[in-house]
Amino acid sequence: MTAEILSVGTELLLGNIVDTNAAFLSQELAGLGVSVFRQTTVGDNHKRLLNALTHAFESADMVIISGGLGPTQDDITKAAAAEYFGQKLVLHEESMQRIRLRFASRGRDLPESAQLNAIIPENAQVLQNDNGSAPGVVIEEDGKTLILLPGPPHEMKPMFTDYVVPFLREKSGRVFASRTLKISGLGESQVEHMLSDLITAQTNPTIAPYAKIGDVHVRLTASAVSEAAAHQLIAPLLTEIHKRLAPHVYSDDGSTLPEVVIALLRKQNHSLAVAESCTGGRVMSELVSVAGCSAVLLEGLCTYSNEAKIARLGICESLIQTHGAVSAEVAAAMAENVAKTAGATIGLATTGIAGPDGGTAEKPVGLVYIGLYINGKTNTVKLNLIGSRNEIRIRATNLALDMLRQTIG
Amino acid sequence: MTAEILSVGTELLLGNIVDTNAAFLSQELAGLGVSVFRQTTVGDNHKRLLNALTHAFESADMVIISGGLGPTQDDITKAAAAEYFGQKLVLHEESMQRIRLRFASRGRDLPESAQLNAIIPENAQVLQNDNGSAPGVVIEEDGKTLILLPGPPHEMKPMFTDYVVPFLREKSGRVFASRTLKISGLGESQVEHMLSDLITAQTNPTIAPYAKIGDVHVRLTASAVSEAAAHQLIAPLLTEIHKRLAPHVYSDDGSTLPEVVIALLRKQNHSLAVAESCTGGRVMSELVSVAGCSAVLLEGLCTYSNEAKIARLGICESLIQTHGAVSAEVAAAMAENVAKTAGATIGLATTGIAGPDGGTAEKPVGLVYIGLYINGKTNTVKLNLIGSRNEIRIRATNLALDMLRQTIG
Repeated sequence: MTAEILSVGTELLLGNIVDTNAAFLSQELAGLGVSVFRQTTVGDNHKRLLNALTHAFESADMVIISGGLGPTQDDITKAAAAEYFGQKLVLHEESMQRIRLRFASRGRDLPESAQLNAIIPENAQVLQNDNGSAPGVVIEEDGKTLILLPGPPHEMKPMFTDYVVPFLREKSGRVFASRTLKISGLGESQVEHMLSDLITAQTNPTIAPYAKIGDVHVRLTASAVSEAAAHQLIAPLLTEIHKRLAPHVYSDDGSTLPEVVIALLRKQNHSLAVAESCTGGRVMSELVSVAGCSAVLLEGLCTYSNEAKIARLGICESLIQTHGAVSAEVAAAMAENVAKTAGATIGLATTGIAGPDGGTAEKPVGLVYIGLYINGKTNTVKLNLIGSRNEIRIRATNLALDMLRQTIG
Repeated sequence: MTAEILSVGTELLLGNIVDTNAAFLSQELAGLGVSVFRQTTVGDNHKRLLNALTHAFESADMVIISGGLGPTQDDITKAAAAEYFGQKLVLHEESMQRIRLRFASRGRDLPESAQLNAIIPENAQVLQNDNGSAPGVVIEEDGKTLILLPGPPHEMKPMFTDYVVPFLREKSGRVFASRTLKISGLGESQVEHMLSDLITAQTNPTIAPYAKIGDVHVRLTASAVSEAAAHQLIAPLLTEIHKRLAPHVYSDDGSTLPEVVIALLRKQNHSLAVAESCTGGRVMSELVSVAGCSAVLLEGLCTYSNEAKIARLGICESLIQTHGAVSAEVAAAMAENVAKTAGATIGLATTGIAGPDGGTAEKPVGLVYIGLYINGKTNTVKLNLIGSRNEIRIRATNLALDMLRQTIG
């Protein structure tokens, strides 16, 4: 099956928002074995949308449209779909009832325009919207499948996952399953090199590596007659990649690195205190993004100035003078002292030069030390990171969290 | 002039990366008075790219392609462009020389594939790449303009700004200028409501509001015979919007909110210490993202636990017991104590319930207090924020920084 993704919205053509829906849908469809040959974006314009729809069905079996489903004058996809398939638009009573209940449950009056949300092409199936008023729509005719989804990602994504995925699975007769290995401390090209024979030989499961700053993901997707059978196809490859990339794989169940770290800390009854210099709050901010972190996270100190390192953490002034604030010795002292003064079992510390200024030949921009105090011992690692100020801070944050994970994991 | 943006890359069709280039180019083109009618994404496939190019020129005067310019087998846009215009591919000696120098200056051997970067269609103009090997290309023929740009944003964006913008300005004979007002503490719909008569009446300059979480931007774009004349057209509207939205406009020169705050602190010889609970490092992380922040930023404490609030900040246990950790009283004490213990002239503090758990009827998820201590006085504000855990943390961070800005600004 081949698909085209059509994003509708003048705000996209003006560049006012970035289209993250197309990437989400493409990734999900790849996981379902559907090939996406083209993504197209058009504005809120009936004629151009109709042209794009016609052009899309010239080469694709399926077209998925996101955006343009709401009740304002800008929202035009249902009318274009009805015209393309020669269908009338009718009121879908069940959707209307859901919209009435939605407004009533919030104590709000039903605006006149709300009824437009429940108007759909006459031979369409409805996809329930659990997070908004506008339902989705599926039209199947002459071997063509058209799926209309709302534009706001918090409505579109759950609708796709909960209603479109089961529909496409049933349609294909095959079931797809996927697992993503998340990797810290290796670059994308290193990962590709270490898996190159597997990537070359891939058939079912497929192997898709992709990278963000300081993070590489490898997704394995298999198709089979059942979900269990698909996961059985994935299992040996998953094990092999774990073996090759160990100890760098931090999760294979969707968990983020901070989630993995917080879960390990909770399981082992550890408590954590953090002292940050160059990462300046980013390590803490990542950890605090995990709900329930307060069970193990005692405190974080951004001791950005030398004075703060001395006063808050009790770092000896002479240690800073002898080795410099960016040194293994100071990273170690920060980690140990933040743990001891906070009464935590673990102390994690960063100190480095994030740039763009402040580098020297001896201590260039990108030099970062991480200190980790645990069970009475302190280890440090020295990193030479590349990128902009914020890229260096992101990489240092991830590597600090990963050092903690590898030590207690 | 009408344009289509073509993004090339199989990694886009697989959803492995989000296409931020299309949004950047659209926004820039809108600012230059070029209407973008369609954005299309195709994979690294010669035939499909050629089809897309042909289809694009059926309705657009100009096509801008990003991606597919590098020397690997995946990179195919120059060949497709040459075929579309019936031109030969030739070696561009000046580009080849630049590439040789680039490799030599880094002490690296010239790979055989590097020469492919310097192969361009015979009648093309070259756009110098100051951040990579692959030059950009402009072809003008039969009233059609084709511009090929590299895919990596850190190469594409400066090439567009430094070489394509002057080219398009000269081509149009008109000059475009724009200014963006950045606004904190108001929602997009509030801003649109407050400017609705101006938005309705817009001609030249145009007014384009757009929103991120906790941040609204309004861009004014004018065209005239010279840049000075365009800025003169913008000036009265800029003043009017400043007046209407005061005190919420935090910049109109491209500065970010943390940059504005750091600049104000430096100018006034203030020093800042931060104590965070619910924002958990995010306020510090935003401030540390500004190069040179160390001149005014003494330290930040993430006193996530009550124990840390008591031990690090000297908050009275009885104060927490009487009012709760999430209270105006505790926010005020955190701000005052972090400033005094750090020896800073200003203390900024946050405490709140970011959720998803921990809310009560009396203190629901989204309740956040900000405390600000300055010149011996402490003020607090109470916020009721909506959204996910991280949206609440982003909004609270921005509003804390903005409270500081408005107080000292």
